[in-house]
Amino acid sequence: MRFILSETARKFMTEKPLIFVTNDDGYQAKGIRLLIDILRPLGKVVVVAPSTEMSGKSHSITTGKPLKLTTITKQEDYEEYSLEGTPVDCVKMGFDNVLSHRPDFLFAGINMGANTSINTIYSGTIAAVMEGCAENVPSVGFSLCDDRKDAPLEDCKPLVEQIIANVLKNSLPDDVCLNVNFPIGKIRGVKVSHQAKGYWTEEFDKEVKQDGHSIFWLGGQYHCTDQSDRADWNAVNDGFAAIVPMHVDFTAYKVMEQIKKQFEN
Amino acid sequence: MRFILSETARKFMTEKPLIFVTNDDGYQAKGIRLLIDILRPLGKVVVVAPSTEMSGKSHSITTGKPLKLTTITKQEDYEEYSLEGTPVDCVKMGFDNVLSHRPDFLFAGINMGANTSINTIYSGTIAAVMEGCAENVPSVGFSLCDDRKDAPLEDCKPLVEQIIANVLKNSLPDDVCLNVNFPIGKIRGVKVSHQAKGYWTEEFDKEVKQDGHSIFWLGGQYHCTDQSDRADWNAVNDGFAAIVPMHVDFTAYKVMEQIKKQFEN
Repeated sequence: MRFILSETARKFMTEKPLIFVTNDDGYQAKGIRLLIDILRPLGKVVVVAPSTEMSGKSHSITTGKPLKLTTITKQEDYEEYSLEGTPVDCVKMGFDNVLSHRPDFLFAGINMGANTSINTIYSGTIAAVMEGCAENVPSVGFSLCDDRKDAPLEDCKPLVEQIIANVLKNSLPDDVCLNVNFPIGKIRGVKVSHQAKGYWTEEFDKEVKQDGHSIFWLGGQYHCTDQSDRADWNAVNDGFAAIVPMHVDFTAYKVMEQIKKQFEN
Repeated sequence: MRFILSETARKFMTEKPLIFVTNDDGYQAKGIRLLIDILRPLGKVVVVAPSTEMSGKSHSITTGKPLKLTTITKQEDYEEYSLEGTPVDCVKMGFDNVLSHRPDFLFAGINMGANTSINTIYSGTIAAVMEGCAENVPSVGFSLCDDRKDAPLEDCKPLVEQIIANVLKNSLPDDVCLNVNFPIGKIRGVKVSHQAKGYWTEEFDKEVKQDGHSIFWLGGQYHCTDQSDRADWNAVNDGFAAIVPMHVDFTAYKVMEQIKKQFEN
């Protein structure tokens, strides 16, 4: 049976919510530890997170080999597991194997590194959020736009707490999840944003091997082509926390009629 | 410098288009061989495709290890390479390392297996198409809704040819790519569609190992919750080729004001 929002509302009035947590930096990362600390007083928390870093894994799923699940701890109000799989594997494993029913909420992160603009599509953290959304669970991903694994989280912590409290109280619209990015340092406020238009140019470091094959290491440079101050990349660079409402539907509805004219005749 | 559409139009009038081809079933798969056969008379074709099957890899990129590129053939009007990487790695490698400038078009597939509904988000083939779209190259992915590796392609071939001819002649709207799915057997026509709402319920086969760990094999069942005959899954089941115009922007614009009210106060 599918999870229904009104059921959440009812539950929230009567019992502690069931909160699912994951990330793509791995279960031992600093960001998920803080997220767990914030969430534990607010409900029953179940964590299924990758055993190792899974950045850049996007919506990748593991089909050709088995998934190894390890129990880290299992208490009445708190369970934690690590999985040798991708973030989306973690959500699938959590929802359909670890939990006895759909959770009331999913929170992912806090990711170290920006998940703004086109990065959204490469991120394992955001993929986990979108997987939750596809399963009709109100889902939020948090990222700090600082690539350092030990980057300080003090500045964003109060806003993480506020956004969580808001979502636990008010939920989210059907079929909508949130992608939240925090700037480095002091935060000027919240700006609800859209995914910035932008792209990467890749630079490959080439190495020629003895057998004549070439191998390449992927690197690159991001270019933002969006001038709007409501573009997430720009909002973050202006010192705001950018909140992008997202959905799991790639359809470009605005060109439907144009495409019908081009292809249905 | 970025690729500009008007430049394509100009080129198309004066010289053969540069066409990039990839897939997620691997460069030796039956579907990409047919696609290459169709495209070679129409332009200069450059193929960079995974050396092995990369289904379900979504928009995953390889950052922690090098990418091995092998030249299969290099002729004046035709080049083919295999890459030990994901489909999106293939696009990045192709665009920024193999080619001297952005291609005029990208075609991916023909994938064996449906890339309708939520499958769109897991597919490596569709990720390659969206990567092309993010790079401002008119891009189209083709899939046959038949999982068999040797599934017959005769019924969809004429439509693949028609759609390619149409896109080469008319291009596509800016920032829009196409996801084309063919039904099994005779095709009743083309239906421009939206991505169907639906979800998977996973079933995990559990195996307990000697060290006490459990391992799981991912399997699942798809459920369509979309009643519209313009939903891609339904269009295909009705015997139509479903063409979904897609964009690389996950923003849920319709709830922007609602989310602003909820989070900006």
